[in-house]
Amino acid sequence: MTEVRSEPRPTDYLGEIYATWAAEMTRYPDMSLELLRIIFDDWQRATVEPDGVTYAMSRVGNVPGMWVTPVDAKTDHVLLFLHGGGFALGSSASHRKMVGHLAKAIGVKAFIVDFRLAPESPFPAQLDDGAAVFEGLLQAGYAPSQITPVGDSAGGNLAVSLVLQRMRERRPLPERVVVMSPWLNMENNGATIDSNDPTDFLITRAGLQANIDRYLGGKVSPRDPRVNPLYADFTGFPRLYIDAGSVESLLDDSVQLEARARRAHVDVTLTVGEGMQHVYPFLAGRHPAADAEIAAIAQWFWKDPQTAQQTEASSTRIPA
Amino acid sequence: MTEVRSEPRPTDYLGEIYATWAAEMTRYPDMSLELLRIIFDDWQRATVEPDGVTYAMSRVGNVPGMWVTPVDAKTDHVLLFLHGGGFALGSSASHRKMVGHLAKAIGVKAFIVDFRLAPESPFPAQLDDGAAVFEGLLQAGYAPSQITPVGDSAGGNLAVSLVLQRMRERRPLPERVVVMSPWLNMENNGATIDSNDPTDFLITRAGLQANIDRYLGGKVSPRDPRVNPLYADFTGFPRLYIDAGSVESLLDDSVQLEARARRAHVDVTLTVGEGMQHVYPFLAGRHPAADAEIAAIAQWFWKDPQTAQQTEASSTRIPA
Repeated sequence: MTEVRSEPRPTDYLGEIYATWAAEMTRYPDMSLELLRIIFDDWQRATVEPDGVTYAMSRVGNVPGMWVTPVDAKTDHVLLFLHGGGFALGSSASHRKMVGHLAKAIGVKAFIVDFRLAPESPFPAQLDDGAAVFEGLLQAGYAPSQITPVGDSAGGNLAVSLVLQRMRERRPLPERVVVMSPWLNMENNGATIDSNDPTDFLITRAGLQANIDRYLGGKVSPRDPRVNPLYADFTGFPRLYIDAGSVESLLDDSVQLEARARRAHVDVTLTVGEGMQHVYPFLAGRHPAADAEIAAIAQWFWKDPQTAQQTEASSTRIPA
Repeated sequence: MTEVRSEPRPTDYLGEIYATWAAEMTRYPDMSLELLRIIFDDWQRATVEPDGVTYAMSRVGNVPGMWVTPVDAKTDHVLLFLHGGGFALGSSASHRKMVGHLAKAIGVKAFIVDFRLAPESPFPAQLDDGAAVFEGLLQAGYAPSQITPVGDSAGGNLAVSLVLQRMRERRPLPERVVVMSPWLNMENNGATIDSNDPTDFLITRAGLQANIDRYLGGKVSPRDPRVNPLYADFTGFPRLYIDAGSVESLLDDSVQLEARARRAHVDVTLTVGEGMQHVYPFLAGRHPAADAEIAAIAQWFWKDPQTAQQTEASSTRIPA
């Protein structure tokens, strides 16, 4: 008897894009950082253009980035968006449309931070740039509660770390933080890196380590709570929303973050998209699970915190 | 004595982008078409986001594409935009921002046609898709005079060829056609391919031939006027605006097009951007020559044709 085994294949467009990237990166293992950055800007391809959103390049706190403004956005709230790409790749161009969908669903404008990238600018350049944007928004007249840090993947780490830093510095905090498929574990030993490897079409342990090396530059411990929030004290952290895909290698980072925040009595919600890839909201406008998840974030965003704490006893799962 | 010679270096951001692409394509001569398409979508990087423009994916004449709508656009005119990329590369994503600037300057909306690409779909798929969009716009209520074909590079060929086809079929014509750095010479023997090779950081004769082979599929003569407008009869062609960069390899295609159109008594204007690269309006929002050129197109667009014919005795040159 012959056992017939088949490799998992991408079941959605994001998985197809990741598989294409992975094939190119495998084919050209010595690929230049310039070409890697071009490829990761192709993330934009996953997302359908959101109608009724305008864009403008600008600076906030003297940091470059992109204003994403739904035509009928409320003006008294802003999303401070920190993009993914392992601290070394990605940009406002890769994330523009996805952030457009999110800003439109929530009904507010967003600023996507084009923070300095590693390895040219290692830690703490990314956090410094995020903090400068937060200060710039305060100076522009937003209250801390009107600024919501949002981030995906490495940008999820930055969004959480930015708030942890403000806590350590005893500065006023935002009321909410949203992270999608946050990448937190700089020790590179998350439980799902191997177990979800067959179904995650983008992430490999070697790829993660390359970006850890670019970000930390060998000068910061991977257990330093400033770069690895899984070692940080979350006592007093704002309401926290986390989502991740069930088949992605970084799922464990979200599970660990939720557990750590919950132990510190943070109002935390974790949504796991069944069968979905890394940062699956990139499929906005194209896949019902992504659209449902963005709607869920918007609903959570405007929920009364007191009511929320009473009703959200456990995490939720959205079926695929 | 030693003669010191230095290779020309890019003097603007578009030249830098082209030089980066060329280096990658030289490094990986067997690069997949998937990766080439990812790289050419990076064209978007050249252009700064235009403020006050919204975008929506749609279909016109059952052909996919992107509506580009300045917030205060007139609704009685539309640009039918055919993108460059050698008939095989490029998309609404690569050209979105550049078309946004152009549509905003003219004050109308635009539809960027995501026509089928070669070699999967060789000639006449691209022209068929462009023609279907033109018919779709007519059915949507636009008069022929309210539809302006616009294209860059290979898309400039398509914009001109689309109108030549309507002339042969004795269908109603648009009043204007705009082309930027049109690529017309399918014999691959333009006079500036060699002479401008040192200063054109993107185009090579071999690269052109690869796209000719993809487009024609060995089944159509490179002198067929349906694919090579330099062999077409321009008698009765609408007002025609052409621009090109002085240092680009395809400059001669614009020069020959202007001469051929002028001999047929077409109201034709050619602007050559001194020192500028292939499709230099991609630098909109970033380089004064690109912004000036887009303003010049808008001015030409709304100029009264009778007045224009009297005053435009010769072509103009914009100094860098």
